This record gives sequence, structure tokens and C-alpha cells, in this order.
Amino acid sequence: MSRRVRGGSVVLLSGGMDSATCLAIASARHPPVHALSVRYGQRHSREVASARALARFFRAAEHVELSLPIGPLWDSALTHRDRPLPRGRSARATIPSTYVPARNTILLALALGYAESHGLDRVYLGVNAVDYSGYPDCRPEFLRAFERLARLATRRGVSGGRPIRIVAPLLWRSKAEIVRAGDRLGVPWELTWSCYAGGPRPCGRCDACRLRALGFAKAGRADPALATLPRRRRRRAG
Amino acid sequence: MSRRVRGGSVVLLSGGMDSATCLAIASARHPPVHALSVRYGQRHSREVASARALARFFRAAEHVELSLPIGPLWDSALTHRDRPLPRGRSARATIPSTYVPARNTILLALALGYAESHGLDRVYLGVNAVDYSGYPDCRPEFLRAFERLARLATRRGVSGGRPIRIVAPLLWRSKAEIVRAGDRLGVPWELTWSCYAGGPRPCGRCDACRLRALGFAKAGRADPALATLPRRRRRRAG
Repeated sequence: MSRRVRGGSVVLLSGGMDSATCLAIASARHPPVHALSVRYGQRHSREVASARALARFFRAAEHVELSLPIGPLWDSALTHRDRPLPRGRSARATIPSTYVPARNTILLALALGYAESHGLDRVYLGVNAVDYSGYPDCRPEFLRAFERLARLATRRGVSGGRPIRIVAPLLWRSKAEIVRAGDRLGVPWELTWSCYAGGPRPCGRCDACRLRALGFAKAGRADPALATLPRRRRRRAG
Repeated sequence: MSRRVRGGSVVLLSGGMDSATCLAIASARHPPVHALSVRYGQRHSREVASARALARFFRAAEHVELSLPIGPLWDSALTHRDRPLPRGRSARATIPSTYVPARNTILLALALGYAESHGLDRVYLGVNAVDYSGYPDCRPEFLRAFERLARLATRRGVSGGRPIRIVAPLLWRSKAEIVRAGDRLGVPWELTWSCYAGGPRPCGRCDACRLRALGFAKAGRADPALATLPRRRRRRAG
């Protein structure tokens, strides 16, 4: 750990297809790459095991798993297993109940402090504003405001050093484009996890499953992660 | 827990004299008040016991103590007991080694998500830009940028509801004015804790001790918290 700026990136790695692709991009463009995953009480905490496997696959310099036990205190269907998940809704109609209040602000703040502590130049995150669930903290205006805040908040930002950049390379890509980009970069889709439901297999009906299926369908290829599922469920998820 | 807006506040409560005064102000102006304290690996984690006593004293509706184990990962003398603390320095000359990268961004993000989850209207914090240590995330421009971010980041901010306000009532007050305000509001100074060093008694020489001593000296009164100390150390700290 050092205050000296060495370049490199920290990637917010949930373990889903977007953050996996984001990790692949950061590894190619701005190594060394540290990956940061947070257990915040998400019902699909299984995604953190995917994050671990992905960090190993892409040979991240570090993979940090932070525990932040806010789940029971937060008002979200994603942190309360007894609440129904929205199923089969059309994306972006309203902000869904899976919205986790201030989640991306919290995650970016943690990544910012980590980046400054380790002399890293960039915070990568896999947010997307095209085929997404309508969360307010996935939008470009949110990211711009956070980058501005980061300059004011940090020693690096105010001491004339190079401020820490917030990089969201998938912001304007469709899910199909993300699948194609991931394919080119060798993302091991079978290691990723998207489903919100927290079951042993993807439910095929939550927003995360539907957006993932949309991406693979429009990219004209099968989702390798579904190859291990029984036939009936595979059909529903695809 | 509910998304319904009920008014009220969440106060970031470290347990020091500023956050204690801030809790007193929020309790008078915008009840009900929830208090939020975070163990982030600070060497003076003793302050959280003070926060608990203060929350009880002011009859906070809730007092949440969150664990966020970032200390060993962060580059700060405040999270590493083996690093020397700056002693006897003149305030604001440079950003001191006790700066914790992105700490106030992280704390405000947590308070923001908590406020939205519990239908609270305001986040109070006791930052000060007059007699302070020169941390970048205590300045008014940082707070304004965070409030702007909060509007973009949250369901409440984008859905036309009343956005969550960031309130820093001590921002422009000297330490002496804070002592006087706390006196008027009945802040029990003997329950507060400021010293960074993490010892059983205030060291009297770190920034936190010096700013506290300055406040009581300029307000023309003794610090009740020092009454329990042995004579020699009391003289040095006062």
C-alpha cells in the first residue's frame, strides 16, 4: 500500500456478465487490476463466488471481498428474501423494487478510497444505461457527478495530482454488444452469475436473467452458463 | 422500514464533540433522529462507545453501529496503529496523514442509503471548515457536490419526491462557537471522545485533542472530559 501513484485500476466486480466484461477490458487497458467485491446482504450472494473465480481467471493483482452488513437495514427486494422479485416486467418502465438505495454511490466511494490508498488511477464499473433495469445510479449524469465529487473528496484530487477517473466502458452498449465484446476478450461466461433470485440455478424470469437472455439471443449465440441446466428451465431462461 | 417519507434525520455520529453537537441540533430541529456510527478500523474505535452513550442520552429513535473492515486496506495513520500521528502541527498547513481516503464520501453514501430506506429527509454531519485538520472532504464544495450527487443517485431524487438534504450545521462555526452551541443544547461533553491516539486517555497533542482544547480555551471554560484525568496530563491537554 502506498500513496505513490502507479497507474492501474480497481474494478467493481459483482460477478455478473457486465462486471466480468469490465474486468476483461480493464485488464487489457489499465493493468495492474485490483478487483473489489462487496457482500452487502444481496440475496444472490452467490455472485461473490463468481467474482472470485473471475478475478482468478483474469489474474487480478488483488481480489478484495468486503463485508458490509447493511442488507437487513436497507429497503430493497434484493436484500430481503421474503419480498417478491419483479418478474417479466418491461425494462425501465419504473425503478423496480430491486433498487438498492445508494448502492452504486456506496460501491464507488469504497472503490475511490481503495484506489487512492493503493495509488491506482481508475475505478472501472460495469454499469449500463441501454439494456438496464432503470436504476438511477446507472445513468451517465450520476457517473459524471460522482467523478466531479471524487476530485473534491480526495487528497489526489485537490493536491494537483492526477485525479482518479471513473470509467464505465459498457455505459452505452447494448447487452448484445456486451456479449460480443466479452467474446472477443475471452470472458468465461460460465463463471459469471446474474440471477437475483438466490437459488441454485438462474430463475430465468427476474430482470437480471431477462436482460442476460436478451443479450445472448440478440448476439445470436447460446449462454454457456445455461448448458448445465435441466432442459425445461433452460428453455424458459433462454 | 418503509419508503414512505416521514421527515426526520439520520446523523453521522462519530462520538466526538462536533457530531455530538450535531446530534443535539438535529434532535431539536428535525426529529425523529436516527444515529449512524461506523467502525471502519479507526485506531480510536473507543469513539463508538461514546457515540452509543450520546445516542442514548439524546434518545435517538435508532442507533446503528455498522462494521466496515477497511482499516488494514486503507492508507491512513488513523487506521494503522504502527504509524506515528502528527503532533503539534499547525492546522490546515497540509492534508495530514490522518486523512482517511474517501471516508466522508463513504459515510455520506451509507447515510444516504439509510435515509432513503427509512423515509428520512435529512443527513446531518458535523464537519467543520474553520478550526479543522484540512481534510478535503470537510469543505463546503465537497458537501455541495455530494448533495447534487444524492439527487441523481436515489429513487427519491429522480422520482419528483423531496430530495434528501445534506445538512452540516457546524460548517462555518469556530470550535469555540461549537462549544457554546453545545452548552446551550446541553451536550454532555464528558461522554464525547476526540483523541485519535486510541489510548485510555486523550493524548493532548494530536490534531483532534488540540482543536478540542482550542475550542474550550477560547470559549473560556474547562473541558469537562478532562476532569477525570491526572493533573499533569490535564495541564498539557488544556
